[in-house]
Amino acid sequence: MTHAHPHGGGMRTSIATVCLSGTLEDKLEAAAAAGFDGVEIFENDLIASPASPEEVGRLCADLGLSIELYQPFRDFEGVDEDRLHAGLRRAERKFDVMERLGTSTMLVCSTVSPHAVDDDELAAAQLRTLAEHASRRGIRIAYEALAWGRYVDTWARSWDIVRRGDHPALGLCLDSFHVLSREPSPSGIAGIPGEKLFFLQLADAPQLSMDVLQWSRHHRLFPRQGAFDLPTFLRDVLDTGYSGPLSLEVFNDVFRQSDPNRTAVDAMRSLRTLDEAVDHRGRAVATERAAVPATTGATTGTATGAAAGSLPGAAELTGHAFTELGVDARSAARVERALATMGFAHRGQHRSKPVQLWQQGTARVLLNTVDAGDEPGGVAEIRALAVDSLDPASSARRAEALLAPVLPRTRGPAEADLSSVAAPDGTAVFFCRTGAEDDVGWLSDFILTGTETAGGTGLARTDHVALTQPFDWFDEAGLFYRSVLGLEPHHDAEYAAPFGLMRSRAVTDVDGDVRIALNSTLLRRGEWAPGVPDPQHIAFASDDIFASAQAMRERGGEILPVPDNYYDDLEARLELDADLIARMRACDVLYDQDEHGAFFHLYTEMLGSRVFFEIVQRVGGYAGYGSVNAPVRMAAHRRSRLARR
Amino acid sequence: MTHAHPHGGGMRTSIATVCLSGTLEDKLEAAAAAGFDGVEIFENDLIASPASPEEVGRLCADLGLSIELYQPFRDFEGVDEDRLHAGLRRAERKFDVMERLGTSTMLVCSTVSPHAVDDDELAAAQLRTLAEHASRRGIRIAYEALAWGRYVDTWARSWDIVRRGDHPALGLCLDSFHVLSREPSPSGIAGIPGEKLFFLQLADAPQLSMDVLQWSRHHRLFPRQGAFDLPTFLRDVLDTGYSGPLSLEVFNDVFRQSDPNRTAVDAMRSLRTLDEAVDHRGRAVATERAAVPATTGATTGTATGAAAGSLPGAAELTGHAFTELGVDARSAARVERALATMGFAHRGQHRSKPVQLWQQGTARVLLNTVDAGDEPGGVAEIRALAVDSLDPASSARRAEALLAPVLPRTRGPAEADLSSVAAPDGTAVFFCRTGAEDDVGWLSDFILTGTETAGGTGLARTDHVALTQPFDWFDEAGLFYRSVLGLEPHHDAEYAAPFGLMRSRAVTDVDGDVRIALNSTLLRRGEWAPGVPDPQHIAFASDDIFASAQAMRERGGEILPVPDNYYDDLEARLELDADLIARMRACDVLYDQDEHGAFFHLYTEMLGSRVFFEIVQRVGGYAGYGSVNAPVRMAAHRRSRLARR
Repeated sequence: MTHAHPHGGGMRTSIATVCLSGTLEDKLEAAAAAGFDGVEIFENDLIASPASPEEVGRLCADLGLSIELYQPFRDFEGVDEDRLHAGLRRAERKFDVMERLGTSTMLVCSTVSPHAVDDDELAAAQLRTLAEHASRRGIRIAYEALAWGRYVDTWARSWDIVRRGDHPALGLCLDSFHVLSREPSPSGIAGIPGEKLFFLQLADAPQLSMDVLQWSRHHRLFPRQGAFDLPTFLRDVLDTGYSGPLSLEVFNDVFRQSDPNRTAVDAMRSLRTLDEAVDHRGRAVATERAAVPATTGATTGTATGAAAGSLPGAAELTGHAFTELGVDARSAARVERALATMGFAHRGQHRSKPVQLWQQGTARVLLNTVDAGDEPGGVAEIRALAVDSLDPASSARRAEALLAPVLPRTRGPAEADLSSVAAPDGTAVFFCRTGAEDDVGWLSDFILTGTETAGGTGLARTDHVALTQPFDWFDEAGLFYRSVLGLEPHHDAEYAAPFGLMRSRAVTDVDGDVRIALNSTLLRRGEWAPGVPDPQHIAFASDDIFASAQAMRERGGEILPVPDNYYDDLEARLELDADLIARMRACDVLYDQDEHGAFFHLYTEMLGSRVFFEIVQRVGGYAGYGSVNAPVRMAAHRRSRLARR
Repeated sequence: MTHAHPHGGGMRTSIATVCLSGTLEDKLEAAAAAGFDGVEIFENDLIASPASPEEVGRLCADLGLSIELYQPFRDFEGVDEDRLHAGLRRAERKFDVMERLGTSTMLVCSTVSPHAVDDDELAAAQLRTLAEHASRRGIRIAYEALAWGRYVDTWARSWDIVRRGDHPALGLCLDSFHVLSREPSPSGIAGIPGEKLFFLQLADAPQLSMDVLQWSRHHRLFPRQGAFDLPTFLRDVLDTGYSGPLSLEVFNDVFRQSDPNRTAVDAMRSLRTLDEAVDHRGRAVATERAAVPATTGATTGTATGAAAGSLPGAAELTGHAFTELGVDARSAARVERALATMGFAHRGQHRSKPVQLWQQGTARVLLNTVDAGDEPGGVAEIRALAVDSLDPASSARRAEALLAPVLPRTRGPAEADLSSVAAPDGTAVFFCRTGAEDDVGWLSDFILTGTETAGGTGLARTDHVALTQPFDWFDEAGLFYRSVLGLEPHHDAEYAAPFGLMRSRAVTDVDGDVRIALNSTLLRRGEWAPGVPDPQHIAFASDDIFASAQAMRERGGEILPVPDNYYDDLEARLELDADLIARMRACDVLYDQDEHGAFFHLYTEMLGSRVFFEIVQRVGGYAGYGSVNAPVRMAAHRRSRLARR
């Protein structure tokens, strides 16, 4: 399996131009820059281009891209003689274009025409005729069952027709969306002879209950961004002996309008992530998360990585090492005061940078002084998050292999060589090994000035970091954290907030040591968005939130007020102990529960432009993030914000 | 029927707080400002509010709003004894809240609980018990069938259960979405006794093929913005003798995040428009478009208007009077040159303002000199559109009654008293009567300097004006033009453009004399939107587009180049005469066809920041706007734009 190496031999990577935004020229440049070997040319992209097919062919060659497919040719088969002749005439014109482009495979979709009849023999015979015409031009026909085809709407039926058509230039195109939207676990695909499988299109999708055509045209995603079992599907296809390209074909409303260069990188990352998840049975070793022998603490990621196309396995993560906030002078006082009242100690000062270390338990916050902005509340935002890895160097190599931009390092002579990469929203992600004796012991960069746990409020560790993602990059960000850090998505929520719908997706490791919650709006906001547009927060775990709240209040800490109406509703809705509700009401603690357990949480006020803190207590195996209460929090933050102005 | 008069007696207008964006306080203020009589309080809005129920009640009273309904109460009926008791306990708590709010009707949705059983007798008995509890508190229960209720999912079944429950405090809530999404033409509603119909919720929706819950929660629209036959539905409900409020309950992703003040006005306009469309059978006279006796040319709009709640009927429109462009000095030269090469004559100059009149046939363009902006191409945009009405004064009164903001008039002593209102995007809409002898003869404001038709290129009239709408206001704009001008939507399209999906909706009068095409993106664009973000254009009709194109070229006119690939595809796709395609290719004319006829069109280059012109020829009854070709046009405009920089 070498498709993870764009310039290697073997299986090629390809992307349909329809996946990307822009003119044909924009798309081709983006595909090449992200390292794709080839493209599918979507007909409408060519039609709108002033470049002749020959010029497009030359541009592709110059960019190092092969043209793997011309698509789509529609509504050909199962018709009367007159329509057959018209269809063949139309095809010849398209063969002309393909010859000029320099491509030799044409996609033919199963018909949706009202003029077609339900006759597989006729369809097979007519496709055979088409293949015969195509073969005279050196062209092959890849026949694909649309999930909404008028008669042929399953891969099995399309394969039966191709088999009956029985022509060397007639083969099958499999599109994972069309297959898996109809049949989540298709069996039998592995039985298709690989040489009759002319083309493979890969797309993921969320599980939606809607018209399949609309689902396909608007909501497809890149592999591992949706709910389809693509690893099994791809393994079955590879088992046929298929040797064509792995080609992405994703119709997505957001990708259609997003920067094509970002989207192409996201697409390539998705293919590498899918590759890793496939059991290649002899072609490549499966890269499960590297198991770490307890005795040595070393990762086996690099060992399996070589076999899996140089993608190092994800090293085991043991927790959040630190979260870094950029704060300007105005907001620094508020943030420091909030940390102090929450029981954090100002434990150290960086040797060469204006960075403070605050700590309680293993929860660490760095405050990095930045320039003031225009924001009335002062700048305060999450600039970096750091995870503890058993093999930070391997984690960094993996990130780089997954196209994460490596950030330049600036460090003093005796300082730790911390690796970091940029997440899609620009947040720096650091790989650390806190407490290690070697050069990644980042804590030694700090001159310790206080004691670690003096006067704490019972906060033990960082529970999660919540980041609001730019609208266009939500799915990209989810895949980034999942693949780069080796996490799994485990929680998706959608809820109505005061200023519009929100969505939330959390990714975490198996043990819940590292949790990252990504939020975004369901629609991009416009002029009316009076709330805090892109809030971020760090949540710290307590084993007794009421004690923590009490201790925080004693230090003069301000907890975000929760309306009485909230508790009245809680009392009506749930059969909770009246005393418990009274305690929650007294401490402004919010509540949620799921099938595994309960969740108590409280918030601070907004500290500057976009950051606040949360204290959480998970009881039992509660897996969520209290998003049911987010609208209450957002309304309250808006009020404080208005009051402060 | 007085609900069109917010402060009159009789039927009240109401809106659910869930329709509007913001905090509860934002929503209440917006509803009051738009003239609603009352509100439904959506529970989650109250829960997130720091105001006590008493304070919310007082705020409503101060704003002149009654609280018509508290909602929703869920998953009550059809359960075992333990759950029944828990449900009653929960209800009592909510009755407490309602008492404190000062409202007496509670909405109970049919259950979706996995714990409920399929037993209508049991459900009826338990709802009777609930009603008995409620009646002791002076509260009534309005039971509603959710379209996705576990067992009760039709209005007929909910009515049967209410009938069986047989309690004075138990009645029915009808929601037009739940009814019409299941049964587009429900019969039998008129047979419900009016006194058992406790509440009426109105919502429209586009016809979508998707999960009904998702359809309901994301895609509802205000009446007359969607595809439901609400006039018939409302007439049937009013025939029962229903005397409660007409209350809007619309869950819509866009409205949830839009300025609540705009949305509330849009909502009120929708109710007035719906009212007009209802045959009130004795309560009010139907206001069909005012028929105009050919002999007098007068409208009867004012006559029927009195009976229909002071909403004057829409006066007949006879065409586009003019379209006004704001142009700065830089772009003026380009626009003037384009008009000249298209055969327009600079016919006159305004007596008191820096406005030129250009004319050909009845197509008139005003060029109004405005200040220069930052745009490299210079400012050029549509500032106003004017329609010819047989009764401009009545048209203006109708617009005002439909809450269109009336624009201030500035005119010289001898100038015409032109009425105008602002459309949602700020475009001024003028009501004229071109050629009339009275004071609305706006043409007399111009000193004529040229001849009307000298050297034309065969352009006879304005075919349509196309305006790109701000994302949040697309549905509002469609309803505005439809209701204010008395037009009908007749064409909806969605297409993939180079920089994202677009949608288009055209409204026109019966004869096609006035056509307005509204465009918007399907998702709001973000940072990556390299095309012209909000293009606008004026399309002029020709009876021989090839002659017009030829004449235009002879004058040195620049037609937007169309790629050869476009014609190659046309040739492959359609059985058109080769000579016709050759002529199109030579003249850069684009082509479309529908079941009624054919469409030929060409475009100019972009003239300044966002305006271009189009020449169209409709053959037969072609009803569209060539939106299939819009992506080709957009890619070409982007290229010229890049080339010019």
